[in-house]
Amino acid sequence: MEIQRIQLHKHGDSRGMLVALEQDGDVPFAIRRVYYIFATKNGVHRGRHAHRHLSQLAVAVRGAVTFLLDDGSGATEIVLDDPAQGLLLGSMVWRELYDFSDDCVLMVLADHPFDPDDYITDYDQFLREVNGAMQLEGATACQGR
Amino acid sequence: MEIQRIQLHKHGDSRGMLVALEQDGDVPFAIRRVYYIFATKNGVHRGRHAHRHLSQLAVAVRGAVTFLLDDGSGATEIVLDDPAQGLLLGSMVWRELYDFSDDCVLMVLADHPFDPDDYITDYDQFLREVNGAMQLEGATACQGR
Repeated sequence: MEIQRIQLHKHGDSRGMLVALEQDGDVPFAIRRVYYIFATKNGVHRGRHAHRHLSQLAVAVRGAVTFLLDDGSGATEIVLDDPAQGLLLGSMVWRELYDFSDDCVLMVLADHPFDPDDYITDYDQFLREVNGAMQLEGATACQGR
Repeated sequence: MEIQRIQLHKHGDSRGMLVALEQDGDVPFAIRRVYYIFATKNGVHRGRHAHRHLSQLAVAVRGAVTFLLDDGSGATEIVLDDPAQGLLLGSMVWRELYDFSDDCVLMVLADHPFDPDDYITDYDQFLREVNGAMQLEGATACQGR
């Protein structure tokens, strides 16, 4: 699964805290889009989609949120509740976001501008595409032997 | 003064709010660095420098902070207290940040990676450089007539 939790370097001093994310540093892609989600209402679930070709780095810069992540072969739950903790998400990962704290601000850096054609919003379609890709990878691996 | 307040488009629906910043959209530069300042202690002043060659877009994604901005010919105070309000800052603007609310998270997008040589941290030096640049611009304008 193309999922990685990364510890971000916190520059703390007598003034407070600062975290810096740089392309070619903690961010393994060119940053083309930055979005942030806030004032999420109680009980709301967001996400419920996968991206065909998108890399993202998510940070709960304030508050907390839970991610359910699924690569088609298994699901895992990750809580983001620390501004110095990043979550790298690659392509073809179904994500669902919930349990937003009232004060949550979720910031996401992405390597492409918004493209509605990149979204898979139907879970069965996601399974077909991700499993098709896995079978194709397996076939290529066999051919390579 | 290379300072511009911009209203960012808020995508609000029954779930909550989302603001997206894209290169070639609200962001008039390639995003090379994203940093955020949080847990700032009471009474702290940050900034107190100018950049020779750096463009930035600042947003208080949570809470509030006050900017004192000075281009060498005059100073102005701007309060950021709305996640849908951006502050574009060009080069050669002296900035001081204070009155951080306890919950403030200030996010800044920049068009260059961190470069200590780009900072002017002495106000008199800033005045010399910015006034020198102004005189040079004036001279060039005269020559162009």
